[in-house]
This record gives sequence, C-alpha cells and structure tokens, in this order.
Amino acid sequence: MSKIVNVEFKLRTYEYYKPFHITGSISESSTNIEVVIETDAGVKGYGEISPSFRVNGEKVEALYKLEEAVKESIIGMDVKEYRKIFEVLDRFFSTPSVKAGVQYAVLDAFSEEIETPVYYLLGGLKEEIETDRTVGMDTIENMVKEAKKIFSEGFNVIKIKVGENLRKDIEVVGEIAKETKGAKYIVDANMGYTPKQAIEFARVLYRRGIDISVFEQPVVASDIEGLKYIRFNSTYPVAADESARSKYDVYRLIKEEAVDFINIKLMKSGISDALAIIEMTKTANLQLMIGCMGESSLGINQSVNIALGTGAFVFHDLDSHLMLKENAFRGKFKQENAKIKIL
Amino acid sequence: MSKIVNVEFKLRTYEYYKPFHITGSISESSTNIEVVIETDAGVKGYGEISPSFRVNGEKVEALYKLEEAVKESIIGMDVKEYRKIFEVLDRFFSTPSVKAGVQYAVLDAFSEEIETPVYYLLGGLKEEIETDRTVGMDTIENMVKEAKKIFSEGFNVIKIKVGENLRKDIEVVGEIAKETKGAKYIVDANMGYTPKQAIEFARVLYRRGIDISVFEQPVVASDIEGLKYIRFNSTYPVAADESARSKYDVYRLIKEEAVDFINIKLMKSGISDALAIIEMTKTANLQLMIGCMGESSLGINQSVNIALGTGAFVFHDLDSHLMLKENAFRGKFKQENAKIKIL
Repeated sequence: MSKIVNVEFKLRTYEYYKPFHITGSISESSTNIEVVIETDAGVKGYGEISPSFRVNGEKVEALYKLEEAVKESIIGMDVKEYRKIFEVLDRFFSTPSVKAGVQYAVLDAFSEEIETPVYYLLGGLKEEIETDRTVGMDTIENMVKEAKKIFSEGFNVIKIKVGENLRKDIEVVGEIAKETKGAKYIVDANMGYTPKQAIEFARVLYRRGIDISVFEQPVVASDIEGLKYIRFNSTYPVAADESARSKYDVYRLIKEEAVDFINIKLMKSGISDALAIIEMTKTANLQLMIGCMGESSLGINQSVNIALGTGAFVFHDLDSHLMLKENAFRGKFKQENAKIKIL
Repeated sequence: MSKIVNVEFKLRTYEYYKPFHITGSISESSTNIEVVIETDAGVKGYGEISPSFRVNGEKVEALYKLEEAVKESIIGMDVKEYRKIFEVLDRFFSTPSVKAGVQYAVLDAFSEEIETPVYYLLGGLKEEIETDRTVGMDTIENMVKEAKKIFSEGFNVIKIKVGENLRKDIEVVGEIAKETKGAKYIVDANMGYTPKQAIEFARVLYRRGIDISVFEQPVVASDIEGLKYIRFNSTYPVAADESARSKYDVYRLIKEEAVDFINIKLMKSGISDALAIIEMTKTANLQLMIGCMGESSLGINQSVNIALGTGAFVFHDLDSHLMLKENAFRGKFKQENAKIKIL
C-alpha cells in the first residue's frame, strides 16, 4: 500500500546572509513552504515550494492557502502511480512552484517506499555535479571582491548578475574576468536590456577577449524575437530563463530557433514539465542549465536529484541554499563547496 | 550491488498461425533474439529484439553477432544507473531493435532488483489498456471474415492493412465497416500510396460516411512533404510509422507539422528515444499510438509496460504475440482478449 493519507504545508522563512540584489529586485529573506506527504504505509515524502512573484506571479501567502485544494486533489492516490498524480497536479499550472514541491514530495515518498533514491529512479546518469555561485549586484569593487572569494573557495563557474546599467555591467564583467582567470562565467541580465543593448554588451566584451559561457535572459520574457535576434547577432550562447517556464514555452522557443540554452528551474515548471523539457531540448540539440529561486537545502535537493538522475545539464546554478541561513542541512546528497555528490 | 555480469542473446523462432501479408511483405515466421541480462546480485532481466529489415534494415543473423559488442559495452555497469547504460546503448542507433531489447532488459533487471514493476517505475499512469487486432492483406472475402471474427471476439479497434491496390482497398474498408458497426478503424498503407492516391482513398471513404481513426503511413518514409500534403488535404488523422523511427525523425515531423499521429514502436527507437518521443509529442499536442513488429509475448511485454506506465497512447496495436505460436506466455501482465491489465 502506498496511498496518500495526508498532505501538509508548513511555512518556513530563511534569511539571506546578505541582501541578494538582481535586476529589479532585492531580497533579504526567502519564505518557502515545506510539503510533507504521508502514505498509509507510514512513509513520508518531502518537497519545497519556493515561489517567485517576479517570474511566476506567485505570492507565498496565497500558495499556502492551496493546501486544501492539493489535499482534495491527491489524497487517496497511490504514489507508485506518480504520473497519474503528476497529471492531476498539472492543473495547478498557474502556481508552478506548488506543482514542483508537491510533485517532488510524491516522488520522494515513492522513492522511500521502494528504498531507491530519486536520482536512481530517474536514471542515475551522474554521480557528481558542480554548482556555480552567484555574484549579486553591488558596487564594482564589492562584486569583484565577492567573485574572487567564490573562485578561491573552489567554485569554477561564476554567475554574474547584470542588467541595470550597461556601462557598469561591461566594466564589472571585465574586472571579474581579470581577477579570476580560468573561471567560466554565466552572465544573467534578468530581462534588463533591450536587444540592441544586449548586443552592445556582448560585442564589447567579446572584443576584449572575454569568454562568456551563457548569456542569460537579456530581454523581457515575452520578446522571443528579441532573443532570436541576439542569438544570431552575438557570439555568446543565449539562454532563456524567464521566457522558458512551461514545456509549452520551451516548445515554442525550439520551434522559433530563438535560443541556445534553456535554464530549467523546477519552480517554473514542476517536475513533469522539467522532464519533458529535458527530452525535447536534448533532441533539438539545445543545451541545458538548471537554476533555482530561493530554495533551502530541502528544495535544492529536488533539483540535485533531477540533475544527477537525468545528467542533462551543462551548468548547475544551485546555490540558493548556500546564501540562506539554515539550522540543518536537509539534502539527500553530499556537498563539498562546488561539488555535489550522491550519498 | 547491481552490476551487469553477463548478457546473453538467444535465437528464437515463432511461426505465424497464418502467413501475415502487408504491403511488400509476407511473413510465415518471426525470428527474434531473447536478451538475458544478469547482475551480480543474481537478478535476471529479460528483453526481446524483434528486427524488421523492411523498416530498419536489420537482419537477425547480423544482430545476433552483436552479443559480444553489447557485452563489451555494458558489462560492469550498474542497472540502477540505467540512463548511463541507455546512453552507451544509444550508440547502437543503426540497430534500434538491439537498443530496444537490451535497454528493456536493463530496466527489467532494475525493476526486479527493487521489486517494483517497470510500469510503476515509469509512472503507473494506466491500469488497463486495450489492443487492436490486425487484418492482414488477403481476398476481400477473407479480410471481411477475419474482421468480423476479431470484432466478435471483443476487439473494438480493427487495424486494416492496405496499400497494394487502391480500388480493392477502398472496397475492403467499406465492406468491413458495413459488417462491424461500432468498431474503430486504423488503416495502414505501409507506404503503398502516392500522395494523390492517399487523398483519393480518404475522400472516397469519407464521402461514404466511413470514419477512420488513424490513416497510417500512406506514403514512403522519406516523403515528409507528402505526409503533410495528405494531412492538410484529407479529414482523417495521418500517422507516421516508417517515417518516425528515432526521436530526431519525430522532432523533424513536429517541426514540419507533417502529421497528426506518431506510431511509436520500441523496435524502431529503443526505450530511450521512445520516452523522448512521448514527451515531445504530448507537448506539441500530437497523438500517439504504439505498435509492434514480430514480437512474442516477451517483446510485447516491453511495449505493454511502457504503455501502462506512461499512459501516453490513444491506440495500442500490440497484437503480434496473438498471431504467433508460443509454448508459454511470458508477459508480466494479464490479458483477456483486447484488454491488457497490470498484475
């Protein structure tokens, strides 16, 4: 027996070690919902909902009120029949972080029941992945200092937040590149540029000989033509993040040949759409990275299991838990600085 | 421990109850390869390779000689890490039935090891599916007789083989429809028509008020423009079968908007590509059916588990084992005429 007998939502607030500043947003804390699913075998499955109002239009106080609706939808269902439950939860498409946290809790319960980690359930493709760390927006001096610190701690991929000031952004990426030779860079504008600004940004840095591995979401989410224009007019690989929430978004991006990379975040798509996006992008020969919102180690555990199991990602931007104060580490994985490994 | 210690290929020949005639081919027997994988835990996983020279260019006597190459590729690998093994086996892309049978045997071994049926591993979406049965080419009289027999035995979906004689084909579908009111029809031309013949076929039958649920592979595999022309110039949903072997074929068909339906056969794509095709076609809002080559119950077991687990298929054409003489039923499922159920 593995029927769901209870679903519980618990509010959890985590403070950032320091305020996290990206284009159009500064966060001092992250309030998430811990999801606990219990089966009639007494097994518990855990997930985490980490909403983003900026990306998904989700507010945690509203999501918290969905506990009853989720219960009504899935109590009595069998976690072994997880795709059946995924389909029911797909109807929560307008609150994708709820879909993600609850779908994962179902997988986690199934995994506990058959005593097989989720990463094996999904295929066990990798035993180890490496995460980047992110340099939020700040003064040039502080950003360079932060990047050097991250690099010295063994993180070889540095994600840099830009998008509010083109000249300063070019300057700061140039300075960081000078001070962290050998690192790889993901530059994320979080929709801050116009297409022409994005091309200017890419051309100036390219002429200076700076290699950027991924140029993330230069323009607003709805500007698919803009993304395509940038893709075909600059040398750096262009990634969709805010433009790529559901599998249907990604299908359209593939069809329009708009980007080189997709940034999957479980909180945008849930588990079901993430698995579809992986298969589609691999077939279409696009590259993948996996990112996060404000997840604690409980939520990062979800993305880590997907990343290890499917082995689908070139870059892993799974560092939110490293930026938050937590009482206890709750991942079912091992981490040593950048390296994340199976247990 | 769940490392592969041995892989064995065993030739098995099954006779058809009566010769099976489709466009360009008549079969009296089916020679398959039984795949047995053994792990160091003493667990065995079973699969079946059922090649098609017509569709895949595969000859069983050549495939049989791949036993050593498969051994060299996967012995020592862990069945828990099945996606790793799938990736290694993807290199056998030019012999997709080998990919299918060996990949499934790996899944089967993993499933035995964690004591969880493959259909639950894949999501457990359906508890029951219904298969069609196929009326091979013969005289009009015999085909109608066969269709009536099938229908009276409780098979509500009848697949009719056409493609060698347009006038006779129109006649036979019309006659069968008259004698089996309430049935659904899949009509399969196995590449036998020109695009204009296909449209003529569809228009005449449509004017006679006959409903065809799927019009399979009217034209040669390479004629993607032809498929698209038929799709947009006839009312019946058009399916790609011979045109849709790998996930890359299907990606192209989706991008070209060439068809309404994809017929997945594990022997064309292996398990890895089948799972990708399922996610892609669902996202693109195409319909799916699942078919077979000359599999015995051991091979049909593979498709049944995929179909039950993913629940992705509108039609199931999994009847080859019903046409072959076997000593013992080897499916890990129950069957009562058309109905196929979980254990």
